[in-house]
Amino acid sequence: MKILLKLAYIGTAYNGWQAQNNGNTVQQRLTKAARHLFGFECDVTGCSRTDSGVHANGFYATVNERGKLGIETSVPTERIPRAINCFLPDDIAVISAEWVNDSFHARYDVKSKEYVYKIFTRHERDPFLADRVWHFPKKLDKDAMEQAARHFVGYHDFASFMAQGSKIVDTRRTVMSAAVSAKGNNVEFRVSADGFLYNMVRIMTGTLVEVGEGKIHPEKIPDIIAAHDRSTAGITAPACGLYLEQVLYK
Amino acid sequence: MKILLKLAYIGTAYNGWQAQNNGNTVQQRLTKAARHLFGFECDVTGCSRTDSGVHANGFYATVNERGKLGIETSVPTERIPRAINCFLPDDIAVISAEWVNDSFHARYDVKSKEYVYKIFTRHERDPFLADRVWHFPKKLDKDAMEQAARHFVGYHDFASFMAQGSKIVDTRRTVMSAAVSAKGNNVEFRVSADGFLYNMVRIMTGTLVEVGEGKIHPEKIPDIIAAHDRSTAGITAPACGLYLEQVLYK
Repeated sequence: MKILLKLAYIGTAYNGWQAQNNGNTVQQRLTKAARHLFGFECDVTGCSRTDSGVHANGFYATVNERGKLGIETSVPTERIPRAINCFLPDDIAVISAEWVNDSFHARYDVKSKEYVYKIFTRHERDPFLADRVWHFPKKLDKDAMEQAARHFVGYHDFASFMAQGSKIVDTRRTVMSAAVSAKGNNVEFRVSADGFLYNMVRIMTGTLVEVGEGKIHPEKIPDIIAAHDRSTAGITAPACGLYLEQVLYK
Repeated sequence: MKILLKLAYIGTAYNGWQAQNNGNTVQQRLTKAARHLFGFECDVTGCSRTDSGVHANGFYATVNERGKLGIETSVPTERIPRAINCFLPDDIAVISAEWVNDSFHARYDVKSKEYVYKIFTRHERDPFLADRVWHFPKKLDKDAMEQAARHFVGYHDFASFMAQGSKIVDTRRTVMSAAVSAKGNNVEFRVSADGFLYNMVRIMTGTLVEVGEGKIHPEKIPDIIAAHDRSTAGITAPACGLYLEQVLYK
């Protein structure tokens, strides 16, 4: 059996999830914390590669002893989060832990993921939201954005919403839901899909913001999808507003 | 005429509001930013001395040219917040600006202030709330806390809720409202008064938490107030959960 952890983290200080040489990544921090808690080398496998600066409220990762399929520990499951959190920095926390089979894979067994992108439109910035939202101090037409977002739903080729240079060949994905909501100066884009292309949510958000500004008509989204051409979509929204919110497994 | 600014700031990195030698305070940062924007030395007067680590969503301060009663500037009032924010660090922001008479005093003309104290009771910490709440990972009886909080309302001598060593002589204050609310793991204590003694909200909160734990009976609060003795009240809650939320002027 492996341990499946649910994590939350502020991505600002990290070079994303994935371990890399000379990098400070969430995976490296969690691997180290697991070794400290369990007393032996561990392998940590994440549900997704999040980019530098991207946050998570519901990131999943499995832990197994290095060289083995599972892990053995006397630490009671319900105590694992608080115990491992003692070895993690303040900006990373394990929220829950459960046991899963040796065959479970944190990345390949994902059924769907949900991302939230947060935009703050007040003229004056809010210090409590620094690095946690995209501060976009202009009026946005939320109705037009919501109308545009609905066109993302369905099975489409999202090549127009993939960063150039990505090596992915099959760019078709199923978007289960996509919605824009607003409360005062806070605008939120929430999207779930069976998979996401590189920078997909950030390009979707950048496009929606251009719709909100009146630069792109909301009924143009089907044409942008059909174009299979990155240059037809909007800008790439910055990483700091993006949150991996939830992951569903098969 | 002076300029009255409304500020929000994360107190974590600062030695409170008040300027001090060898200190890094919000007042010093704002004074420097005002000089950069207006081009001459300014004096900045705050509505309150907040402690090290205490936050604000609605702190007020006036700005006048040093040695003069008011200030003259060609910067349009509605542009002042965004302009001055360019000279402030990310964790301090001016939200609004308005003109007030030369005779206006940011501190002495305060009619009432409202503070909010935030407690987070989940077992596992939330990285997004680090230094922004008091992480108190235990069950709290919110009804008992609310029952206790109601006893603070009124004109009382709050000597039991003042840090020892304070030089204040008249310890009577009028509390206009005091209420506890809870939403999931988030517990909030909101209190407004015509003035607060040193550490008053933090000692009130510490006492309410002991009520929530069952250590102090909610009907004991009137006795604690009547004792005029700091040792009868509960612990002093940490600074990181406290927010100066709003100030009303005469």
